[in-house]
Amino acid sequence: MDSEMENKNSTPSVPNCRPGKETIVVALGGNAILRPGENGTFSEQMKNIRNTAAQLAKLILRGKRLVITHGNGPQVGRIFQQQEVGARFGIPEMPLYICGAMSQAQIGFMIQQALYNELIMAGCNKTVVTLICQTLVDPNGKAFSNPTKPIGSFYSKKEAQKAMVEKGEIWKEDSGRGWRRVVPSPEPQGFVEIDAIKLLIAQDIIVIVSGGGGTPVAQDDHGVLTGVDAVVEKDLGAQIVAQIIGAHTLLILTDVTNAMIYYQAPEEQKLEKTSLAEIKRYYRQGHFKPGSMGPKVLAAIRFIESGGEKAVITSLENALLGSEGEIGTVITR
Amino acid sequence: MDSEMENKNSTPSVPNCRPGKETIVVALGGNAILRPGENGTFSEQMKNIRNTAAQLAKLILRGKRLVITHGNGPQVGRIFQQQEVGARFGIPEMPLYICGAMSQAQIGFMIQQALYNELIMAGCNKTVVTLICQTLVDPNGKAFSNPTKPIGSFYSKKEAQKAMVEKGEIWKEDSGRGWRRVVPSPEPQGFVEIDAIKLLIAQDIIVIVSGGGGTPVAQDDHGVLTGVDAVVEKDLGAQIVAQIIGAHTLLILTDVTNAMIYYQAPEEQKLEKTSLAEIKRYYRQGHFKPGSMGPKVLAAIRFIESGGEKAVITSLENALLGSEGEIGTVITR
Repeated sequence: MDSEMENKNSTPSVPNCRPGKETIVVALGGNAILRPGENGTFSEQMKNIRNTAAQLAKLILRGKRLVITHGNGPQVGRIFQQQEVGARFGIPEMPLYICGAMSQAQIGFMIQQALYNELIMAGCNKTVVTLICQTLVDPNGKAFSNPTKPIGSFYSKKEAQKAMVEKGEIWKEDSGRGWRRVVPSPEPQGFVEIDAIKLLIAQDIIVIVSGGGGTPVAQDDHGVLTGVDAVVEKDLGAQIVAQIIGAHTLLILTDVTNAMIYYQAPEEQKLEKTSLAEIKRYYRQGHFKPGSMGPKVLAAIRFIESGGEKAVITSLENALLGSEGEIGTVITR
Repeated sequence: MDSEMENKNSTPSVPNCRPGKETIVVALGGNAILRPGENGTFSEQMKNIRNTAAQLAKLILRGKRLVITHGNGPQVGRIFQQQEVGARFGIPEMPLYICGAMSQAQIGFMIQQALYNELIMAGCNKTVVTLICQTLVDPNGKAFSNPTKPIGSFYSKKEAQKAMVEKGEIWKEDSGRGWRRVVPSPEPQGFVEIDAIKLLIAQDIIVIVSGGGGTPVAQDDHGVLTGVDAVVEKDLGAQIVAQIIGAHTLLILTDVTNAMIYYQAPEEQKLEKTSLAEIKRYYRQGHFKPGSMGPKVLAAIRFIESGGEKAVITSLENALLGSEGEIGTVITR
């Protein structure tokens, strides 16, 4: 009847495919999907994601339970641009937060298929699924009083003023290059669908969630949700997922093996095993670049502060060793 | 810490919010999202979906467990067109099946939020989640040897021939209006992520899945999956979900209260309570229009043949009465 079921029964069981106790939330950086210099075609993205899936499969074959989060910057940027150019041809535009949800399906689908394939080729039949979830943000928080995140293309002052008046949007002049819309970058506070995430993980289903930090929503006093155009920091989204589900490890994968102090200065130094107190001191001293290593370190700090055992920042290629605390910047209490 | 949790605890329990035993797979027609004459703006879609959610909430408040599937024709059509026009501005195109996944997130997100809101306003706090799933199709089936479903815009013969040579696509001349790409319309055979769907339903989580019939994939002899550009009939997708999860009722919601025999002829007659044998006879006699009532009736027939208790075809406004077999075309064994 159902070929998926048939397949499930005929796959030989792999001893190391059985789940262990350790749950790891993986935060994939942009390089897991798109490499520098690439144009972002589907085949480029799929090739990179296959490589990413091969790294993640190693962890699963060692019995680790994974929840996978990922960046979506270039992808949501393109979807948003497609809304802009489509509108010129009469195709109605979707708001930014809907574009965000769409990017989660675009990227999630690719990861879900590539990871399933890696596992099945290793004789391990596991379900991998993408959940579209709502990320709670506080519309009264300070991020909303001063939006800073530019999105979309550059426009003229006239066009910007029109959008400000007609749509109530906020636009800013960007260093002489023209006007761009800016949106808030609020902190994630939780996920409306957290029950579904927990349930699936507990049954050894691999969940892809909170892509690009998830789709931001505000909740009113009656509990009613409304989507908001904002960009949630993806590493903090991963940290909140890890915190709420009680993950053992938050594994932040990027394009460098370690976080650095005195980055690009003569006294530059790799951070290897480090304590919470130590990395908090470096963070406060401004060693980590905002919008880059900064939010990764902040996510790691918050995860340990909220009771997590281990946070690791390392490169995608070192995912397995990193998950075991053998390589990378490893933060424990 | 987590405002979602806080909210969950503070919501008064609603007696009729407790789940019963009856699981219903709802297949929403295009009119649940977009009405005739509308342009398909976000606010139009959201308004329609709020109305749809109000109808669905009635079922849930009566203790029915829902799995929601939906159409995606206009939405995936627009996303595909956005790829076409975006490509003229250098934005890489995603394949049709990725556009399909994106449409599931776009529509699923709206339904998920609107339904959550309807329920919370009624004092019922339930998790509603959209799953991005892979629909298994047979690439050796007859649908693939003669693709018939036109997608995208009209092009010149020259452009069509270029795409046929360079991309191996199939294009056909469309009644003097130009050339259009055609893709197969295969039957759905199963869902790769069925375990996740079952698990969530069993725990009283409302699942939105198989939007537009789901995202079609082919599986090779080793179990490896590949996305395929095809359009799966959404009502048959709903039927396969209903069959695999062992739903009690398949509720197909559309814009008419009943299926008709001798449609638009002098002897036109509403079909009300009907047996499997009777409706199969009418189906064979060609009473139901292909691409419209035809696939709905076929889905209903197959659901009952596979062991389902009750299949109902009725209008969105009659969802509750329909689910109880009190109105609409009600098919039982």
